[in-house]
Amino acid sequence: MQRHFDEELQTLKVQLMRMSALAEAMIAEAVKALVERDEKVIATVYAREKEVNHLQVVIDEMCLTLIALHQPAAGDLRFILGAAKTNSDLERLADQAVNIVDKAKALLEEPPLRPFTIIPRMATLARTMVRDSLHAFVNRDPAQSRAVLLRDDELDQLKRDITVELSEFMRQDPASVSRALALILIARNLERVGDHATNIAENTIFVVEGRDVRHHGG
Amino acid sequence: MQRHFDEELQTLKVQLMRMSALAEAMIAEAVKALVERDEKVIATVYAREKEVNHLQVVIDEMCLTLIALHQPAAGDLRFILGAAKTNSDLERLADQAVNIVDKAKALLEEPPLRPFTIIPRMATLARTMVRDSLHAFVNRDPAQSRAVLLRDDELDQLKRDITVELSEFMRQDPASVSRALALILIARNLERVGDHATNIAENTIFVVEGRDVRHHGG
Repeated sequence: MQRHFDEELQTLKVQLMRMSALAEAMIAEAVKALVERDEKVIATVYAREKEVNHLQVVIDEMCLTLIALHQPAAGDLRFILGAAKTNSDLERLADQAVNIVDKAKALLEEPPLRPFTIIPRMATLARTMVRDSLHAFVNRDPAQSRAVLLRDDELDQLKRDITVELSEFMRQDPASVSRALALILIARNLERVGDHATNIAENTIFVVEGRDVRHHGG
Repeated sequence: MQRHFDEELQTLKVQLMRMSALAEAMIAEAVKALVERDEKVIATVYAREKEVNHLQVVIDEMCLTLIALHQPAAGDLRFILGAAKTNSDLERLADQAVNIVDKAKALLEEPPLRPFTIIPRMATLARTMVRDSLHAFVNRDPAQSRAVLLRDDELDQLKRDITVELSEFMRQDPASVSRALALILIARNLERVGDHATNIAENTIFVVEGRDVRHHGG
């Protein structure tokens, strides 16, 4: 029974890592569609979204099954509840890639506003945060989780920089308003990816360092 | 043991309703601070945020304790995992009220851009969605959950309306750019409140209508 449980827990981790890899790819592709003006890749993002939604249901069911069949000890129970929450965060950060391509589609119909520098940097940073937060979760590593939390400030700063820069564009040139606004909102989509990575990291710390559930209540 | 479990489950629901009431109040207060230019209420929102964060930890621990001590049957287990997710959504939608007052503080230092009509409507709609989604969750009512999902379209439409209107302001008057942008972002904060209510509603449908966990796996 214990061996069976360990195997299923391992499968749960593998599925979460698969979901995280998909979500990271979606973010990279969404920003590629925007920056390289590559419309073909937009369809890929929408296709992957379906896969992510399916995987979310599969992972939620795995969490329920693990608890129901194996009645895990406190530490593992805490981990499995954390996995269900991580699952939600991964699905929602993947949604941000969809939000980005929704806006990219409209932007590709107009001439580009300016060369992109900050948005690809934000995307790279956000993806690294996702990968590291997930890695920290499956390895129950609070130190790596805390490193993710620190990097969120950097992402916020980049968002502020691009907002200032694009606001100035809007003031100088009224014709740039809709494009500049779309780019500001895309920067916020990437900020939200970072927020979800932060949630996963905070959740990991709660899972690993939180009080033992059996020491109180009842 | 069963009576004890039922009582604890009831307490869990009461705590979730308390958290939801707090979050709703925060949204109302954040928009009041903005619309009525009432700085005093900003401090109230920040104070309530601390209360919400504390309640989130309490509710997560209650979920863990309920599962660990009572090993609930499949339907209740699904509900408790749903409660943990609902808990996260409530905390995050309360954060949107904080995001709104952060921007309101800057806006109150400048003359008002225009009379507010859409933002208070969005706030009322979003709060109703939160209340109804939570009500539907604690009563395991998928019909009421589906009604919440329908209202999200209305909220999205209001967000699009205000974005169009404020973009026009920015084009007409460069001096309005930073204030108009802040209001567009506040409308998006309210849209995100609605998104969290939608998540709670979808989660309720999964809890009530999802496949029985004991019929598969292992």
